[in-house]
Amino acid sequence: MSLPAAFHEIAARVNNWGRWGVDDEIGTLNLITDDVVRSAAAEVRSGRRVPLALPLKEDGVQTGLIPGRVNPLHAMVQINQELFGPGTVATSDDTVTMGLQTATHWDALTHVSHSGKIYNGRPAATITAHTGARFSGIEKVPYIVSRGVLLDVARTKGLGRLPGDHAVSPEDLDEAAKFGGVTVRRGDIVLVRTGQIQVYLAGDRHMYGHPSPGLSVRTPEWFHARDVAAVADDTLTFEIFPPEIEGLWLPVHALHLVEMGLTQGQNWDLEKLSTACAEEGRYAFLLSAMPEPFVGGTGTPVAPVAVL
Amino acid sequence: MSLPAAFHEIAARVNNWGRWGVDDEIGTLNLITDDVVRSAAAEVRSGRRVPLALPLKEDGVQTGLIPGRVNPLHAMVQINQELFGPGTVATSDDTVTMGLQTATHWDALTHVSHSGKIYNGRPAATITAHTGARFSGIEKVPYIVSRGVLLDVARTKGLGRLPGDHAVSPEDLDEAAKFGGVTVRRGDIVLVRTGQIQVYLAGDRHMYGHPSPGLSVRTPEWFHARDVAAVADDTLTFEIFPPEIEGLWLPVHALHLVEMGLTQGQNWDLEKLSTACAEEGRYAFLLSAMPEPFVGGTGTPVAPVAVL
Amino acid sequence: MSLPAAFHEIAARVNNWGRWGVDDEIGTLNLITDDVVRSAAAEVRSGRRVPLALPLKEDGVQTGLIPGRVNPLHAMVQINQELFGPGTVATSDDTVTMGLQTATHWDALTHVSHSGKIYNGRPAATITAHTGARFSGIEKVPYIVSRGVLLDVARTKGLGRLPGDHAVSPEDLDEAAKFGGVTVRRGDIVLVRTGQIQVYLAGDRHMYGHPSPGLSVRTPEWFHARDVAAVADDTLTFEIFPPEIEGLWLPVHALHLVEMGLTQGQNWDLEKLSTACAEEGRYAFLLSAMPEPFVGGTGTPVAPVAVL
Amino acid sequence: MSLPAAFHEIAARVNNWGRWGVDDEIGTLNLITDDVVRSAAAEVRSGRRVPLALPLKEDGVQTGLIPGRVNPLHAMVQINQELFGPGTVATSDDTVTMGLQTATHWDALTHVSHSGKIYNGRPAATITAHTGARFSGIEKVPYIVSRGVLLDVARTKGLGRLPGDHAVSPEDLDEAAKFGGVTVRRGDIVLVRTGQIQVYLAGDRHMYGHPSPGLSVRTPEWFHARDVAAVADDTLTFEIFPPEIEGLWLPVHALHLVEMGLTQGQNWDLEKLSTACAEEGRYAFLLSAMPEPFVGGTGTPVAPVAVL
Repeated sequence: MSLPAAFHEIAARVNNWGRWGVDDEIGTLNLITDDVVRSAAAEVRSGRRVPLALPLKEDGVQTGLIPGRVNPLHAMVQINQELFGPGTVATSDDTVTMGLQTATHWDALTHVSHSGKIYNGRPAATITAHTGARFSGIEKVPYIVSRGVLLDVARTKGLGRLPGDHAVSPEDLDEAAKFGGVTVRRGDIVLVRTGQIQVYLAGDRHMYGHPSPGLSVRTPEWFHARDVAAVADDTLTFEIFPPEIEGLWLPVHALHLVEMGLTQGQNWDLEKLSTACAEEGRYAFLLSAMPEPFVGGTGTPVAPVAVL
Repeated sequence: MSLPAAFHEIAARVNNWGRWGVDDEIGTLNLITDDVVRSAAAEVRSGRRVPLALPLKEDGVQTGLIPGRVNPLHAMVQINQELFGPGTVATSDDTVTMGLQTATHWDALTHVSHSGKIYNGRPAATITAHTGARFSGIEKVPYIVSRGVLLDVARTKGLGRLPGDHAVSPEDLDEAAKFGGVTVRRGDIVLVRTGQIQVYLAGDRHMYGHPSPGLSVRTPEWFHARDVAAVADDTLTFEIFPPEIEGLWLPVHALHLVEMGLTQGQNWDLEKLSTACAEEGRYAFLLSAMPEPFVGGTGTPVAPVAVL
Repeated sequence: MSLPAAFHEIAARVNNWGRWGVDDEIGTLNLITDDVVRSAAAEVRSGRRVPLALPLKEDGVQTGLIPGRVNPLHAMVQINQELFGPGTVATSDDTVTMGLQTATHWDALTHVSHSGKIYNGRPAATITAHTGARFSGIEKVPYIVSRGVLLDVARTKGLGRLPGDHAVSPEDLDEAAKFGGVTVRRGDIVLVRTGQIQVYLAGDRHMYGHPSPGLSVRTPEWFHARDVAAVADDTLTFEIFPPEIEGLWLPVHALHLVEMGLTQGQNWDLEKLSTACAEEGRYAFLLSAMPEPFVGGTGTPVAPVAVL
Repeated sequence: MSLPAAFHEIAARVNNWGRWGVDDEIGTLNLITDDVVRSAAAEVRSGRRVPLALPLKEDGVQTGLIPGRVNPLHAMVQINQELFGPGTVATSDDTVTMGLQTATHWDALTHVSHSGKIYNGRPAATITAHTGARFSGIEKVPYIVSRGVLLDVARTKGLGRLPGDHAVSPEDLDEAAKFGGVTVRRGDIVLVRTGQIQVYLAGDRHMYGHPSPGLSVRTPEWFHARDVAAVADDTLTFEIFPPEIEGLWLPVHALHLVEMGLTQGQNWDLEKLSTACAEEGRYAFLLSAMPEPFVGGTGTPVAPVAVL
């Protein structure tokens, strides 16, 4: 079995293999140049900051459906311990065990493979238990700081959140950009708001996961045409789930991560940002969303912040 | 036994308990106002970005001396797994177990207590295995984005790195600020470079830890006088180790975290930033250093980025 | 608030503090003498072995209700890795993260405290994040090998499993002993079968936990009178849950672990043993149920085996 | 590259593939029949029990040389927590993260592969991050209880421990059996004592690992001829390390685990057993060494006990 022709046709149109050289490991993040960052900083007007990460805790978004993807387990190894003797300064220390794709996160380009390949045509078999991802591991990404643009699809449509069967289309993105008065530019990080995370915030982890609105298989071309550097949204699956084309699972993942080399983010809490952008009447901002440099990591928790 | 009078005298001069209300949990981070952030963004000139985190890996900076503070253990739970059947898109997933104070990190204010108290006079006993830190856990810090200032003490003195017995003094900080042409201001995040991390980068984890240069017990007053929001450096122990006053262990930790409510960072790799600042002739920049919001966490890994 | 008088009255009757000296850390396990073990070995007739542990896996018996008590997370760190070069012998290595009271386990005596005390009158505060249990940690138990006796309460009553609101009484134990043709003796390890684990084995983790049959608060005196060394059963909560006396939670835990110093086990799969004993017409056997010696551990997974 | 002819010659002589059917997953453990267990129980004379596991703790035998094989990290998630309200019975809970081949352990047959194969000729590729070992995972071993025989090579030679370059030979095993007055029989578990673990017990983890005495590549044939069920010793590497034949790494592992399907154990503390056997003048006993049933596990910690 292999992926259907419909997939391969889109793949051919968005493929970036070789675009930044055969040795490239970071894909569209190359589009974030010093110029882009300078103009991103220039977007700061009010100095208002909006954090976009969910709290990291044991009752996080994971339900156990994805084997091995565990919510953070926090445990103590020292509590007010006077390590240097009675009456001395005391310290507390803690540890965590967690999946790297568990909460608000970036997928590394290596999180997905298809047809035996990862981004830039390398063999998928370069991912091993011994080293993790030998190429395009998350530690290869030096920084993710750029202009962020919120495409608030739910608000544009006058909805609190999109229905579970809504595939966010290129037309939706155009409409939301127009609503926000922004033009998506080369090097931007695009945040797409569906409102789906409200389901989790209201306490229902199971319904949050699926059915879920999310990106349509038609959107990668939209991002490709605009040379977007990265994309994140407020859902568990990133793309609409169950998928639009029967039997074609995770096509947007495969197009973004494998074909385009476009880093993508999931479980971003865009609720407060939606409010802030609406209040300030601006949908572009400085976005810092630094990956934790796990060597060989196929993903990373991230604590993004938008500065308006 | 209790802490010596010398400690309590300094403590009385720098104490911030109640300054931001009895309910405050974030201390000097309150000093990072919208105004401060706006002017921080205005420091961006070239758009050059410098990441400051060490890679997260099993042979990280920890040597086993601090019980329970383990380097990141990375393991795979899926490798190119075709979860939806043969020939479908495949995913790779990984997990990590690590101490929250292990690598490049922020200490939460609750990382240290003395005399039974944490910041703002709360009982140290509010830290439990059940909830971790009930007050001032790292998830209470919504964002750390501000103006960063590099005080490159080693470079100022014409040294690659300071000797192991060098306590960085207020005079050293003044001298480095003058060398850098910067005035430390309210709300700044001050990065103090000793060069010590070169020892680790050269492969010697044991010598990196101690003896180590670091902040003198006299520096908290210097930071207090300038209303600094946070301080980080490039050592394992943050302050000089072994300490200046025999039997007074971790006094700077206790003054910063407990008395002042000043968030502090350790194991920051300031080597490339030192080069960048020297090349650009500027020692102030936009700094984003977002904590991962571990609920109840007494610390957090951080992937800081300086934008020049 | 404190525990009700009803509890303290039983506690006074079964208390073993000081019985094996003020330094004792293992309580009723002292009752397993060489003599007891010799006669236990003499119970072996057929050589038939029955393992009693549930498989250790991510979808184990824990549902997330008990904070921090996580099912085993298994992950790979090496898969067929030719560590010594291409074509050499390859190795696979794995890691696990799990709660020590998660699956088939022994509670260490320190798993429970009441009124600020653990077994033998020691302060509960001797359990810390730094060392775990300083006294009566599971590593202090050198061996658990003795005569095992199955009291098959469900089978005795002609039931597949007891109803969820059935508190196993002393009369039930007498009846089951008579049914099995055994007399419980000093140093025995008593296994009480309710059949409740069938609910888990049938796939319902939530119903398995509660409501659940289990030991009545009246049974510790029965075990005390017979000088039983340890007790285990096939439920999540060990004792009936919700409890018999409103507001008195976990009384059997407190009586066994704190007052008597009696080590107890939960989530033991007694189904195959029930069949084997019925087939052989014998309800006594050699039982080996060695704790893993986690230093400071308040519990341990265990893989018990009955040899008939 | 591939393994040398010398290896393949021995392999041909000891290979057990198909011996217990094409579906077999446990190899020589099939040799432990009810008869064997009955006569094992008959070895119990004094009732004296000797535990053979090292304590599980953070400063265990691993030094960091083997990537991912971490010593146990113990952490607390509840300490005397009154989960049901103030004044109620309190519980303490802990978690562990550890490598499954870290301390006193059994290697599952899948721990090693060579030439792309595991035991019984199955493809090594059946081990994945998703399921761990699909065949011959440690959970497939229902029980390990049999007659144990201590071959105390060090004591036989009048040494505290063997020199680091001593390969334990078939002649050494014969000599030790004669010294102990035992004949190794079908279904026995053979424990080979070198005394090397004294180096670890004396505090030197690095010297413990290598150079290390251990089994010679000539011993698998000896075990094969006697139809031994399993073998364990008191070293980190099990076999002599560095190896006898240059470039032939871990040949005994490959012969035992892959060719013979013989389960093997490492880091067993045989010191107290050596004393006990010498005192009692008997070198055969009942041995219970139950694996923890980690699903898909390529190894397991074990807490063996000898009953004399």
